[in-house]
Amino acid sequence: MIEDKNQQRTSIAQLGEFGLIDHLTKQFEIVQPSTIKGIGDDAAVMDFKDKKVVVSTDLLIEGVHFDLAYMPLKHLGYKAVAANVSDICAMNAKPTQITVSIAVSNRFPLEALEELFAGIAIAAKTYEVDVIGGDTTSSQKGLIISITAIGEANEDEIVYRSGASETDLLVVSGDIGAAYMGLQVLEREKQVFLVNPNNQPDLDNYTYLIERQLKPEARVDVRELLEKLEIKPTSMIDISDGLSSEIMHLCKQSEVGCNLYEDKLPLDPQFINVCEEFNIDSTTVAINGGEDYELLFTIKMEDFDKIKGNPNFSIIGHMTQQSEGIHLVTRANTRIELKARGWDAMSEDV
Amino acid sequence: MIEDKNQQRTSIAQLGEFGLIDHLTKQFEIVQPSTIKGIGDDAAVMDFKDKKVVVSTDLLIEGVHFDLAYMPLKHLGYKAVAANVSDICAMNAKPTQITVSIAVSNRFPLEALEELFAGIAIAAKTYEVDVIGGDTTSSQKGLIISITAIGEANEDEIVYRSGASETDLLVVSGDIGAAYMGLQVLEREKQVFLVNPNNQPDLDNYTYLIERQLKPEARVDVRELLEKLEIKPTSMIDISDGLSSEIMHLCKQSEVGCNLYEDKLPLDPQFINVCEEFNIDSTTVAINGGEDYELLFTIKMEDFDKIKGNPNFSIIGHMTQQSEGIHLVTRANTRIELKARGWDAMSEDV
Repeated sequence: MIEDKNQQRTSIAQLGEFGLIDHLTKQFEIVQPSTIKGIGDDAAVMDFKDKKVVVSTDLLIEGVHFDLAYMPLKHLGYKAVAANVSDICAMNAKPTQITVSIAVSNRFPLEALEELFAGIAIAAKTYEVDVIGGDTTSSQKGLIISITAIGEANEDEIVYRSGASETDLLVVSGDIGAAYMGLQVLEREKQVFLVNPNNQPDLDNYTYLIERQLKPEARVDVRELLEKLEIKPTSMIDISDGLSSEIMHLCKQSEVGCNLYEDKLPLDPQFINVCEEFNIDSTTVAINGGEDYELLFTIKMEDFDKIKGNPNFSIIGHMTQQSEGIHLVTRANTRIELKARGWDAMSEDV
Repeated sequence: MIEDKNQQRTSIAQLGEFGLIDHLTKQFEIVQPSTIKGIGDDAAVMDFKDKKVVVSTDLLIEGVHFDLAYMPLKHLGYKAVAANVSDICAMNAKPTQITVSIAVSNRFPLEALEELFAGIAIAAKTYEVDVIGGDTTSSQKGLIISITAIGEANEDEIVYRSGASETDLLVVSGDIGAAYMGLQVLEREKQVFLVNPNNQPDLDNYTYLIERQLKPEARVDVRELLEKLEIKPTSMIDISDGLSSEIMHLCKQSEVGCNLYEDKLPLDPQFINVCEEFNIDSTTVAINGGEDYELLFTIKMEDFDKIKGNPNFSIIGHMTQQSEGIHLVTRANTRIELKARGWDAMSEDV
């Protein structure tokens, strides 16, 4: 996804609202058999036959959820879709459609919106979801993106947050913490840029972290991986706010406790190196950093043999009785009570 | 919907994001049999069995789509839901679920959000739709509301914008233009207030217009009314941007022309009086004003006898060959070409 350095600026007002919507959405093709009618009427129409329908929605605000100083618009479009698709994956469902609404202030030229929609189109193609509707309007300040994702699943496939039992194992896909450290690297480069705009950043040592921040992937593959292993999770959630916060959601809704083991946390070597460089404790980041969009789930103890050693998954703890609470068991074998300190957009606001 | 004059101000940050969502959404009950799981997981789950699913979404921005100077928050919540439910009605479908996402700046205390959600709750109850999800976050400026509405219908019930034929009759529910004039009255009162804050407005002569602006109703009853008349519209759209703009959508997508008759436009007496008071041509407002949320549809000519004289509907024109264009036939029997000059949020932005 190399950025287009095209300097042309076309005013959005030239196209008008309907012209703009036509212009931006004509690139979206319909691929899902459940999509009967996409963009262009009062509503989209879908047919899920005997499947259950799954719906999730997110609102993303410039200055709160993203900073256009280091977030290229194409990546932002991709990430906004990925984050919503991830919520559908967290239900163990198959994402099928999205709606995309955008509000922009007049400082955005048409070319900027084209970049944003190009990223949305790439994500829609990657995840095989149809863009079936949305709204395009003006904002008084900055860029606002609202995405609703729709998915389908058979009734017996759907996994809620509330199904974990006391003896279940806690499993996470991929590795964690990298997206947060990617953000730290980008924040540092922004500060350097503000002091010296001619400085050319050398980001070779940070490529994985930056990619995890700017272009996270929804784990649409996990549903299939688990199906092949013949494992159905008992509960599941995606890691958007941070591991600690998500564990607390699972525990609260399933009415269980949890022991999380520090030495089991799956950390990328680049992540560990950069934590050292920033003099930040890697465990703290792995537990509290957000936006990894990995899937966190519980499985029955008897499924241990099916999943152990699988490179896609790490067993990072086990559930307990609710009265035992939620703890991190450190390498030194001390138990520390977990507190949610995740990515809380509300409390970050000044 | 009398406003609560409670002056208490509780900071949103005190509750935290999850506390806030719990607090605001606990009033929402599930009534639709198709809702399997509402708020509280990564996604909501629905089961539409052999029905088709219909989805529509809207993004509303303070200062662009509403002005809190004269729009009480409870009314705003109600109207935001009604406008989306109206889109589902315009497909001749039955609204069943909505998601509601909100972003607010810190100037909004908890009590303001409670008012907004109280309005949403009343609308959800009125239209019998379940609130199944959403997102609550902070904005850098003002209030942002994103609503997605979901509905259901049998395949043979759904009406698109594209089904009108050359000889069909053009019909509108209710009356039109009043919401726009209600806005003019409120704008005038705002200016009076800015000059003299102690002035007590006397709005007795404007109650209907103001109600049409502040508390419009989605025409969920039209589906049933038409069913009883044994009429299935050939095309349908709701009037959000203005009659002229909506006629052009129907004509474009159905590839037909249209003659609209000035003397057939359904105008409320209060609307006509206030147009005179404001020295504005009532036909111009009826054609170009927006936000009436009435339904505009076409029916087969042979259904004329079933609908004529029905107090809920007015036959306001007929479709023609596309080559004949789209015209208003005035009382003086001159033909004026219709141009879309509707409520275009994009071009209104400064």
